[in-house]
Amino acid sequence: MKKIAIDAMGGDFGPEPIIEGVLKALKEKDFIAYLVGDEKILKPMIPNNLLDKVRFINSDDFIKMNESATEALKRPKSTIYKSIELLKQKKVDGVVSAGHSGATMSLATLKLGRIKGIKRPAIVTFLPNIKRNYTLLLDVGANVDCDAINLYQFGLMANEYAKVVLNKNDIKIGLLSNGEEESKGNSITKEAYKLLKENFPNFYGNVEGSDIFKGTTDVVVTDGFIGNIVLKASEGAADTIGKIIKEEIKKSGILQKIGALLLKPVFKGVKKVTDYAEYGGAPLLGVNGCVIIAHGKSNSKAIKNAIFQALKYIDNNVTEKIQESLKVH
Amino acid sequence: MKKIAIDAMGGDFGPEPIIEGVLKALKEKDFIAYLVGDEKILKPMIPNNLLDKVRFINSDDFIKMNESATEALKRPKSTIYKSIELLKQKKVDGVVSAGHSGATMSLATLKLGRIKGIKRPAIVTFLPNIKRNYTLLLDVGANVDCDAINLYQFGLMANEYAKVVLNKNDIKIGLLSNGEEESKGNSITKEAYKLLKENFPNFYGNVEGSDIFKGTTDVVVTDGFIGNIVLKASEGAADTIGKIIKEEIKKSGILQKIGALLLKPVFKGVKKVTDYAEYGGAPLLGVNGCVIIAHGKSNSKAIKNAIFQALKYIDNNVTEKIQESLKVH
Repeated sequence: MKKIAIDAMGGDFGPEPIIEGVLKALKEKDFIAYLVGDEKILKPMIPNNLLDKVRFINSDDFIKMNESATEALKRPKSTIYKSIELLKQKKVDGVVSAGHSGATMSLATLKLGRIKGIKRPAIVTFLPNIKRNYTLLLDVGANVDCDAINLYQFGLMANEYAKVVLNKNDIKIGLLSNGEEESKGNSITKEAYKLLKENFPNFYGNVEGSDIFKGTTDVVVTDGFIGNIVLKASEGAADTIGKIIKEEIKKSGILQKIGALLLKPVFKGVKKVTDYAEYGGAPLLGVNGCVIIAHGKSNSKAIKNAIFQALKYIDNNVTEKIQESLKVH
Repeated sequence: MKKIAIDAMGGDFGPEPIIEGVLKALKEKDFIAYLVGDEKILKPMIPNNLLDKVRFINSDDFIKMNESATEALKRPKSTIYKSIELLKQKKVDGVVSAGHSGATMSLATLKLGRIKGIKRPAIVTFLPNIKRNYTLLLDVGANVDCDAINLYQFGLMANEYAKVVLNKNDIKIGLLSNGEEESKGNSITKEAYKLLKENFPNFYGNVEGSDIFKGTTDVVVTDGFIGNIVLKASEGAADTIGKIIKEEIKKSGILQKIGALLLKPVFKGVKKVTDYAEYGGAPLLGVNGCVIIAHGKSNSKAIKNAIFQALKYIDNNVTEKIQESLKVH
């Protein structure tokens, strides 16, 4: 049975939503949960009938969100450190962390090491598109300064991961640019374009910011600086629209308020499409092992889905596939 | 009276919405409209009582959207070329173009020249924020590769322009980055941070993608590659939410459809907040003169507001203020 280490303490809301998510996952799939955290707090939260599927790795230290990522490297007793250490020693098959993402990333890269040949790991996230599917965007924060080879390798890694999570073989890879034409792009993007075009039969070409949400390609490649900005800007735009709708309803008449009540199922439907809890977390591709970075504000559903993502990653040998793919390309 | 040259042919929808916008503007404000385009087509569109406020600059060539910007430099008879030429010869005080934006930019930069000391011009656009105001974002497409001094100068130019359009003196300038902390950013952003901090008392610091829509600062500075991507991604995210709401309503029951009808005024209110036609166009800051780039798909309201923007720019001597500001900073 697969074993997943879960940082049970590091999330924004403490252990409750994390443990709840683990319990939901245990009810639906077979795996052993290694809960890394304060055993005194965690153990009473697990019902007796599930105790045989749970191991406790005691730790009373965790990296707070406002601490620096480098701090994490000096805290071998912290939950993230211990979780990654378990994976390094092959005592577990994967790690899910809703804790400090920078710390998780640094520790994973340093302790597990990069896949041979991969220059930089990348965080890949899921954005909903109008086709009612997900567009994979990477990197969203692991690397702020990237060269063309980094971007090329991001495409290669995402190609393997997308096959698994989108469940199809013909993955289209797009390169994020300021226009569709080959001539568009900053200097690094233009260079990456050439590399991708020469080496990748399923390279689609340049895509624009809006293509992420149109689902023009399955994967959109960019550097971690731009990826982070695009992710937060899109979330911000979506959020703002939601808030303006609410404000407009608030200051409108009684008929509009009734209209809003009647539309509740519709708004719920929209929320479901755009809710990150539906997919769970963002894998760190390019390190030797399965590391899923969940949102600090993850609810139990997001944690459950992040665990399922880890299981899928492991069952499909994504690390090995990336390794293999490097030999071909 | 101020004179504005308007490329009357180059928009996506031909001269109709443009002329309609000019007529609306003429009814509200005093100026002379120099309509650059095919006089045979344009003249019959102007009612007799407004003919004394209109001049025709005949031209039967215009740069199509799918032509290259460099093509424009070789077409002195085209509407954009003639419009910019009028400004260069000081026969008009400003130009509004809904035509090929790359061509407008190239011609303006080449023919009018840059403001002395400005290394690169930048296009500044308006994004609605939750405070029911606008955040100014620049550059959104003039320069794909920028250095720290370019970004610094973008801040300086936008500071002057924001004072005029936001009608206040205390402008907060933010630098787009992957986190708020001073330590965040790619190498160019970090360098620009230092320049802005040392020279600009009203520099706020780094802002994230979501801050654009929160209105954390009045101005957000980035390079034209990222600015273009962020702009299109946010529009794409907003668009997709709108489409998903429509789809969900379509497949829902009769009560929800009634709810949607009742909510029409609310959706209209939201549209008003997010509609670019409300502000009109995007000025090209840093060239010697007032050049407003309107959306190719501008309706008459957008054209009217772009003309008003040009008048505001001219009345407030924005070019001269940028020039002055360069001496101080």
